[in-house]
Amino acid sequence: MTREPPENIAKYIDHTLLSMTATAVDVERLCQEALRCGFVSVCVNPYFVADAKKHLAGSNVRVCSVIGFPLGASTKESKAFEARQAVAHGASEIDMVSNLCALKSGRLQDVEEDIMAVVASVPQAATVKVILETCYLTETEILGACKIALGRGPLC
Amino acid sequence: MTREPPENIAKYIDHTLLSMTATAVDVERLCQEALRCGFVSVCVNPYFVADAKKHLAGSNVRVCSVIGFPLGASTKESKAFEARQAVAHGASEIDMVSNLCALKSGRLQDVEEDIMAVVASVPQAATVKVILETCYLTETEILGACKIALGRGPLC
Repeated sequence: MTREPPENIAKYIDHTLLSMTATAVDVERLCQEALRCGFVSVCVNPYFVADAKKHLAGSNVRVCSVIGFPLGASTKESKAFEARQAVAHGASEIDMVSNLCALKSGRLQDVEEDIMAVVASVPQAATVKVILETCYLTETEILGACKIALGRGPLC
Repeated sequence: MTREPPENIAKYIDHTLLSMTATAVDVERLCQEALRCGFVSVCVNPYFVADAKKHLAGSNVRVCSVIGFPLGASTKESKAFEARQAVAHGASEIDMVSNLCALKSGRLQDVEEDIMAVVASVPQAATVKVILETCYLTETEILGACKIALGRGPLC
């Protein structure tokens, strides 16, 4: 028995282009595909957020931007600045990379403050998702990072 | 005939650790190695600049931080903020990744404004180097990017 995908599967897809060599033309094509297919969002690097917002004007397709991508090793203040500006440029979803270096260093408070700084920097209406890069983490670290991302970390 | 390296070769080496999983202990070891060998600098991600500065206090070893690393696809304002903060945390050298997406899009003015924003954000005493990622560029793009980085680009 084959299980068919739900009819509204497009609504679960973040159409994403984060390539180092992506061009403005590639981003325009990404947005056209998202409009045609009814994807929930396009996800681009911060430099292209304003471009994507322009191409998606008047539609329900959201713009998502990655923050601190891909290393997550910038400071909490830089990530907060980057997130705030992405929202100002039209992003309504923020995919932030958590501070993997801090986590691997056992600095759990830094991991939490990093996330909190980004959350505090954008309006409540914006969605903030936390990228954990679990492939680099032990099971214990994954559990700890999940607790922190869910707001049940060291500072709670 | 073997050509020996110059005796002062250590003075040309930026001792670098930009791994996604680098820890505070790794950074401390990096700094100890730089002190022992007399390297000109250590190069770390922004999160670790303050750590490195502390470990190198009282020495001549400089702290270098990468900015917009590795994609270069953040905004000029974010790069400027990140650079300014890295200097405030103790960096005296800034290795910024140029905006490869803008370059591949033919937006040469954006490439130049990106570099200028970072240069303007730090004190004159700080060194700013521009990472061009030439492996992704055509010969024409490399020449254009070099002209821009040397201050002989579209806005000059």
